[in-house]
Amino acid sequence: MYQVDLNSDLGESFGNYTIGMDHEVIAHISSANVACGYHAGDPLVMDKTVATARDAGVAVGAHPGFPDLMGFGRRNMACSPKEVKAYVKYQLGALMAFTKAYGLKLQHCKPHGALYNMAAKDMDLALAMAEAIAEVDRDIIFLVLANSKMAEAGKQLGLRVANEVFADRAYQADGTLVPRKLPGAVIHDTDEAISRTIRMVKEGKVTAITGEEVPLKADSVCVHGDNPSAVEFVKNIRARLVEEGVSIVPLSAIV
Amino acid sequence: MYQVDLNSDLGESFGNYTIGMDHEVIAHISSANVACGYHAGDPLVMDKTVATARDAGVAVGAHPGFPDLMGFGRRNMACSPKEVKAYVKYQLGALMAFTKAYGLKLQHCKPHGALYNMAAKDMDLALAMAEAIAEVDRDIIFLVLANSKMAEAGKQLGLRVANEVFADRAYQADGTLVPRKLPGAVIHDTDEAISRTIRMVKEGKVTAITGEEVPLKADSVCVHGDNPSAVEFVKNIRARLVEEGVSIVPLSAIV
Amino acid sequence: MYQVDLNSDLGESFGNYTIGMDHEVIAHISSANVACGYHAGDPLVMDKTVATARDAGVAVGAHPGFPDLMGFGRRNMACSPKEVKAYVKYQLGALMAFTKAYGLKLQHCKPHGALYNMAAKDMDLALAMAEAIAEVDRDIIFLVLANSKMAEAGKQLGLRVANEVFADRAYQADGTLVPRKLPGAVIHDTDEAISRTIRMVKEGKVTAITGEEVPLKADSVCVHGDNPSAVEFVKNIRARLVEEGVSIVPLSAIV
Amino acid sequence: MYQVDLNSDLGESFGNYTIGMDHEVIAHISSANVACGYHAGDPLVMDKTVATARDAGVAVGAHPGFPDLMGFGRRNMACSPKEVKAYVKYQLGALMAFTKAYGLKLQHCKPHGALYNMAAKDMDLALAMAEAIAEVDRDIIFLVLANSKMAEAGKQLGLRVANEVFADRAYQADGTLVPRKLPGAVIHDTDEAISRTIRMVKEGKVTAITGEEVPLKADSVCVHGDNPSAVEFVKNIRARLVEEGVSIVPLSAIV
Repeated sequence: MYQVDLNSDLGESFGNYTIGMDHEVIAHISSANVACGYHAGDPLVMDKTVATARDAGVAVGAHPGFPDLMGFGRRNMACSPKEVKAYVKYQLGALMAFTKAYGLKLQHCKPHGALYNMAAKDMDLALAMAEAIAEVDRDIIFLVLANSKMAEAGKQLGLRVANEVFADRAYQADGTLVPRKLPGAVIHDTDEAISRTIRMVKEGKVTAITGEEVPLKADSVCVHGDNPSAVEFVKNIRARLVEEGVSIVPLSAIV
Repeated sequence: MYQVDLNSDLGESFGNYTIGMDHEVIAHISSANVACGYHAGDPLVMDKTVATARDAGVAVGAHPGFPDLMGFGRRNMACSPKEVKAYVKYQLGALMAFTKAYGLKLQHCKPHGALYNMAAKDMDLALAMAEAIAEVDRDIIFLVLANSKMAEAGKQLGLRVANEVFADRAYQADGTLVPRKLPGAVIHDTDEAISRTIRMVKEGKVTAITGEEVPLKADSVCVHGDNPSAVEFVKNIRARLVEEGVSIVPLSAIV
Repeated sequence: MYQVDLNSDLGESFGNYTIGMDHEVIAHISSANVACGYHAGDPLVMDKTVATARDAGVAVGAHPGFPDLMGFGRRNMACSPKEVKAYVKYQLGALMAFTKAYGLKLQHCKPHGALYNMAAKDMDLALAMAEAIAEVDRDIIFLVLANSKMAEAGKQLGLRVANEVFADRAYQADGTLVPRKLPGAVIHDTDEAISRTIRMVKEGKVTAITGEEVPLKADSVCVHGDNPSAVEFVKNIRARLVEEGVSIVPLSAIV
Repeated sequence: MYQVDLNSDLGESFGNYTIGMDHEVIAHISSANVACGYHAGDPLVMDKTVATARDAGVAVGAHPGFPDLMGFGRRNMACSPKEVKAYVKYQLGALMAFTKAYGLKLQHCKPHGALYNMAAKDMDLALAMAEAIAEVDRDIIFLVLANSKMAEAGKQLGLRVANEVFADRAYQADGTLVPRKLPGAVIHDTDEAISRTIRMVKEGKVTAITGEEVPLKADSVCVHGDNPSAVEFVKNIRARLVEEGVSIVPLSAIV
C-alpha cells in the first residue's frame, strides 16, 4: 500500500490583490502551505484560506517567508539565524491563531521561496527554522527539500521531517536538485514527470541526470495552482497516482 | 485584603529603533502589554520582551494595534469589524508563539492606541475584538477601559474582563473618561492622582469632574515607561499602594 | 468645439500582484492617474506604467493615497493635514522621477480613494494637498471632484484646477454627489450615464436627483479599467462623445 | 588651498521613533545624506530634515536604501539591477519634492548600508544606480566609496563622481577598504585617524595596511552623528582640518 501527500502554496493573495487558483487546486491536494503575512497573505486572506482548507478536508501548514512583500519573498536576504528563527516563530504563531479558531491543528511548516532555498544549503538557517518549530510546537512536521540541510536540521532536533520532491525537476547523483540555470534542470514532458514521481513514491528511487540510481524518499509532491495548466497537471498527477494504487493522504498520515 | 494590577506597554521598539524604558519599568509592574508587530514591535523585539517579562516574573499580554507603523497605531483607521477581528487574531497568535516558546501562557489582550479608543465607543469593533479572543483562547483576559463598549462586549461573550483605570485622568458621571481636549481632563498633581487611584482600588469609587461619586472597579492601573519621570511615577504609585495595604498582582490573580 | 478629458487609475499592480487592465484601457483615455507606492504601485510598476502612458500618448498624473497597502487606500485614516501634505509631496516627487526619466511633465495630481473622499469634504486636508502641489510644482493640475473642498482649496492657492465628473453617479442640488448608500446614487443604465455625461460636457449642466438643473463644469470624466465591462464602457463613452463632436484631450489642453 | 566635504547620514528617524543626533552633528558637516523612506525616514522626517539642513547651510543629498525598514537597510538583498535602478529613482524623486519645496537643489546621492556595500563590488548594481541618477538629473553628484565599482560606473556614465574616504578604516594596497572582519580593519586611535585623513586630503595618499603608499583622492569624509562620542569626533576632525588649512565645503564646490 503506497501513499503520498500533495502539497501546494495557498493564501498568497493580499488586500485587494488576488493571486493563485486556490479554489480550483484545493480539491486535488492533501496539504496546503498557507502564507503568513510576510512575503504574501494578510489576516483576512489567512482566515479565508484556513476555512477553505478545512471545508475541503485539506491539512493546513504554515508557509513562512522573508519580510519582503515587494519581492514576494523570492529574493535572498542576508538575515541572521536569530532573525530567521524569530520570523518563523512569528509567522507560525500568527497562522495558529486561525487554525485554532477553526478547530484545526497546524500540521506542518514549509518555508517559502528564498527562505526555503537558502535554508536548503545553509545549516545555520536550517537549524534556526527547526528550533523555531521545536519551540512553538514539536508536533508540527517540518516539510523540507529531500536531502537538504533542512532535513538534517529537523532530524538533529528530533522533529518529524517530511521529504518533498519535485515532479518536474532533475536530480543530481547526491539527491539534490539540478540548479535551474543548468541544462536539463526542468523536465518539460508531463508524462515523464509523472512517471518519475510514481517511481519515487513506489520505489523510493530516481534516475539522476548523470544516470545513477538515487534513493529518494518522497513523502510529499510539490504542486502548483498558479494557472490553469498547473491545476490541470495536479488533476493529472493525482489521477495517475491513484491509478497506480497510491493513496493521496496528508503528511500527518505519513510521517 | 486589597489587590490591583499595574500594566504598562512594552516591546514597542522596532528594528534599529529603540523606544521605552522597558528594563526600568518592568521591575515595578505586574503585567506587560507587548506590541505585536503591527503598530510597533518586531519578532526579535517580541522575543526579547517576553524573555525580559518572564525573568522579571511579569505576566505577558498582547497589545495589538492597527497596521500603521508610521503612525504608531495612534491614528483612527476605518477598518471593518471583520478586519479588526482578523488583525487581533493574527497578532494574538504571533505573540503566543513567543510566550509558548518561553513556557508562559498569554495572560491578557489590551488593544493599543486608536484601536483601543475606537473600540471603547464602538460596539461592533469591541465585539470583533472579543470574538477574536474567544476564538483563539477563552483563557485570555480582555483588559479594557472600565465602563466601555469593550467591557460590555467581553461580558457578552463570556470572557474574563479586567477593568483598567487611569490615575491621571478625570472621569465623567457615567464612569467614562473626560475627553482629553476638555479642561480638567488630565490630573497633573501626582499626589492627587495617586490618592484617587488608591480610592478606586480600595473603595471602588472616584469623584467625577462634575462632583458625583461614581462606582469604578479598578482591576488594573495603566502606567507608562516612556521617560524617566514616568518611571518615577510608577515607583511612586507602587510604593504608595503597598503602603496602603494593596498588593500588586498580575491580572490573572484578580479576575 | 467641445472637449473633455477621460481619466483612469493605472499602475495599481504591486510586486508579484497584477490588478487592472492597464493595457486595454489606455488606448481609450487621455490622462492616467498613476499610483505612487503608498496605497498601490511600486517603483517597477511606476516605471512600466509611465512608459506605457508615454507610448500611448496619454498624459501622466500622480494618484497619491494613504499609506495603507493592505486596505488599498480605501479606508479613512485620521492623518493630520501636515501628514497628508508630506505624504502627497513624497508621492508626487517619487512619480516625477519616472516622468522626468521619460522626458514627460507630470500633468496632474488626483488623490486616491479615502484620501480623495476625505479631502472632498475637509478643507484642511484639501488645503494640505493643494499646498503640497504648489510647493512641488505650480504647473501640476489639481484634478478634483467638482464642487468639492478640493476645488475650493486649489483655487484659493491659485492652482490650475480641473473638475472631475462621474458618468454613473447621481448629483445633489448643490452639485455634490449623492452618497453611495442612498437610493438612486448609482446610475445603472449605461445609455443614461453616457447621455448625462454628454450633457455635462456640452451644456455644463446635470439634472439633480431632486429634479433641479445644476450647473456642473466637466473637465474630465472618471473611467475605470478594472474589468472587461468597465473597459467596454470606456470604449462606448469615448465613441459616443466623439460622435457628439466632443474631442478627447488631456487635461493640460483644457485648464 | 585645500578643501574637503564632511558628509553624514541624517533623517533616519521614523514615525514615533527617533534616531541620530541630527541637530548636534549638522553644525559641523557640509553635506547631509537624507534617508528617503525605504530603509529609514518618512515624509515628515524628510521634510524636517531638509528644513534643518537648509537652515544650517548644509547641502542635501539622497541616501537611498533597500526596502527593509526592519533591517535598517543593512542586510544584503538579492535585488536585480532593474529593481535597484527603480528603487533609487523612486527615492531620489521623493526627496527632490522636499528639496524643491525649500528652494534647494538635490546635491548628491549616496546609497545606504547594504546597497552601498553591494554596489561597491558589483558593477551591474553600480551601473543601475548611476543610470537612475543620470535619468533623473545629471547634475546630481554620485558620492561613492573611493576606488569602488560605483566610482567606475559613475565615470562611465559621465556623472560627477565624488570619492568618499573613511577616517577610521584601514586601506588595502589597491585602494579598497580592509574588510571589517580582518584584524586592523578599524583604526581606534582618534589622532591617528585624523592624521591619516589630513594626509588623504592634502597629499592624496594613504598608507596601506601592507605598507604601500596608495594614491587616494578624498573629496568627502564620512562622519557620524549616532552618539555623543561620534559627534565629538566630528567637531575634532573638523577643527583639525581647519587648523591644517583645509576648508570644509559642500561637494558641489569640489567636483
